[in-house]
Amino acid sequence: MASQEVPKTCKVILADTIAKKMLAEVKETLAKVQANPNASKPTLAAFLANDDPAAAQYAEWSKKTCEENGFNFDLHKIQKESLEEAIVEANNDPAVDGIIVYYPIWVGNQQQDRYIQETVALSKDVEGLCHTHLFNMYHNVRFLDPPHNLKKSILPCTPLAIVKALEHLQIYNPILAYGNRLYGKTITVINRSEVNGRPLAALLANDGATVYSVDITGVQLFTRGSGIRAPRHQVLDKEGWGLKDVLPLSDVVIGGVPTEKFKVPTELLREGVVCINFSSYRNFDGPAVKEKASIYVPSIGKVTIAVLLRNLVRLIANRPRPEGTSDDAEKARNEAFKDD
Amino acid sequence: MASQEVPKTCKVILADTIAKKMLAEVKETLAKVQANPNASKPTLAAFLANDDPAAAQYAEWSKKTCEENGFNFDLHKIQKESLEEAIVEANNDPAVDGIIVYYPIWVGNQQQDRYIQETVALSKDVEGLCHTHLFNMYHNVRFLDPPHNLKKSILPCTPLAIVKALEHLQIYNPILAYGNRLYGKTITVINRSEVNGRPLAALLANDGATVYSVDITGVQLFTRGSGIRAPRHQVLDKEGWGLKDVLPLSDVVIGGVPTEKFKVPTELLREGVVCINFSSYRNFDGPAVKEKASIYVPSIGKVTIAVLLRNLVRLIANRPRPEGTSDDAEKARNEAFKDD
Repeated sequence: MASQEVPKTCKVILADTIAKKMLAEVKETLAKVQANPNASKPTLAAFLANDDPAAAQYAEWSKKTCEENGFNFDLHKIQKESLEEAIVEANNDPAVDGIIVYYPIWVGNQQQDRYIQETVALSKDVEGLCHTHLFNMYHNVRFLDPPHNLKKSILPCTPLAIVKALEHLQIYNPILAYGNRLYGKTITVINRSEVNGRPLAALLANDGATVYSVDITGVQLFTRGSGIRAPRHQVLDKEGWGLKDVLPLSDVVIGGVPTEKFKVPTELLREGVVCINFSSYRNFDGPAVKEKASIYVPSIGKVTIAVLLRNLVRLIANRPRPEGTSDDAEKARNEAFKDD
Repeated sequence: MASQEVPKTCKVILADTIAKKMLAEVKETLAKVQANPNASKPTLAAFLANDDPAAAQYAEWSKKTCEENGFNFDLHKIQKESLEEAIVEANNDPAVDGIIVYYPIWVGNQQQDRYIQETVALSKDVEGLCHTHLFNMYHNVRFLDPPHNLKKSILPCTPLAIVKALEHLQIYNPILAYGNRLYGKTITVINRSEVNGRPLAALLANDGATVYSVDITGVQLFTRGSGIRAPRHQVLDKEGWGLKDVLPLSDVVIGGVPTEKFKVPTELLREGVVCINFSSYRNFDGPAVKEKASIYVPSIGKVTIAVLLRNLVRLIANRPRPEGTSDDAEKARNEAFKDD
């Protein structure tokens, strides 16, 4: 560079850039997995049983992305009371490849939502919310079929979208062994919900990071222990700790607080920090954070939808092989998104 | 990965791996720059005027690497008293493309060594030790010919070798703007010599890092200031600071202390730190550091020699164009090692 030009110090990376790269890979992998050029388009069945406008909009975006990328998106707007039966029907319908349900459904009754999550067949659980998928994620078990290890376990969409974003940003260091590529990185995740924040903290710690998981109840430390010797993350309460203690230590700060009024205090951030927001509200003060961060990702939604389709292709690859599957298609199935 | 396999946590990267990649690039660039397939091999003239066995060995390795990669290495073992005259002769000899001198020569008289460094013609200063080259490096000026910016200024070999190692290790983040790729990284350099440690600290800080430069006299902080807004590094004394203050903060620790007894105290290192040794002694306790670091580079010498040849090709590319230079060769010259 010329001596006196000072390049902009904060790189803003849009979800679209990351999503496009992933969608190209999804299409390519789907073509390999299906092998037969006359194979029908995969179908994602979606169930909208609430009147949350955010859910309706997410469904709309998903439909658009599906159709642009060679997938059918079959949206069912139904009553809460018919939902269970409709899911069972989709479970049994060979024309349905994956099932997505928009949560929350029974507001104030998380247990009943949890019951619905478990109603979705494991083989169609594109969101990775069935207990087997969640158990594997928390236990750092990557496959459904040990010891063969050919069928990848499905990871929940938003947490995996953030992992993919961190890979794109080269925070995962490919020089390190697969499974350890966040070793040496300190990451704060603000949100510890069961669908997003806790799985995300677990995934990042399983990959070697030191993770501070923060919510309104306090701070927990997720790590694989000293020298990352443990095979999966452990959790430690950090009594009395707060953002003031963890933000100045963090290489990466991930915000997912679902309220308009919450903002990450910019003055506590390290110079050159990487900031990612996955809340539908802006958890960072954009202009201020750009003065301090090296990289800022203001939203992640489009990556989440790309991950949804990626998971769908993975489910297709995981299905029992139809008779006469060629060796090439067999290989493609085994290798689909190998490095999840 | 299978759930219960814990991959080795420290990746040891050998200088050879990095050097090989660079030498392949050097050969390829030389072929493009010379264009004419009958062009004679470039010649590096080397002057050994001391009886330091380390210098003799370094010369031996340089000779081997030169010959293996299509360069002539012309070693002159001479008396101190004839050195200046011999260098002037080489400056004027069109068959000589670059000049290297093994230091120290006048032990206890650094000023006289400095005089010799300045005797080498700028156009043959393969070590980047002439004042113009040093000035440009400290001032973060990358070219010799502003505003055309086609002739790259030469950087000193060992500091540039460490920069190249950090690029290989993906500590430089290519997602960030060129010139800012170390933004957010904290690096300790133990050694502040005029040939190695100080230029290295300056280069790393010019590229956006927060650098703690440590020697026996204390700690200095090299940075481009708040938000890396300054075009080049500034230096601040950190009174009373020592390794105990800076090592726990550092993502990368670089040791270059030229004594056998110095060891970086492992217990002060962060978990997952990246450690690089450029001393001819081992500044890290190997077995202990492998339990704590994510990446360990035990030596850098071979990369330094690869950089020497890289600089030589750059000098050739910088020379006035011979008449009838093709457009392709012209382009190759301008673009040789563009991203230094």
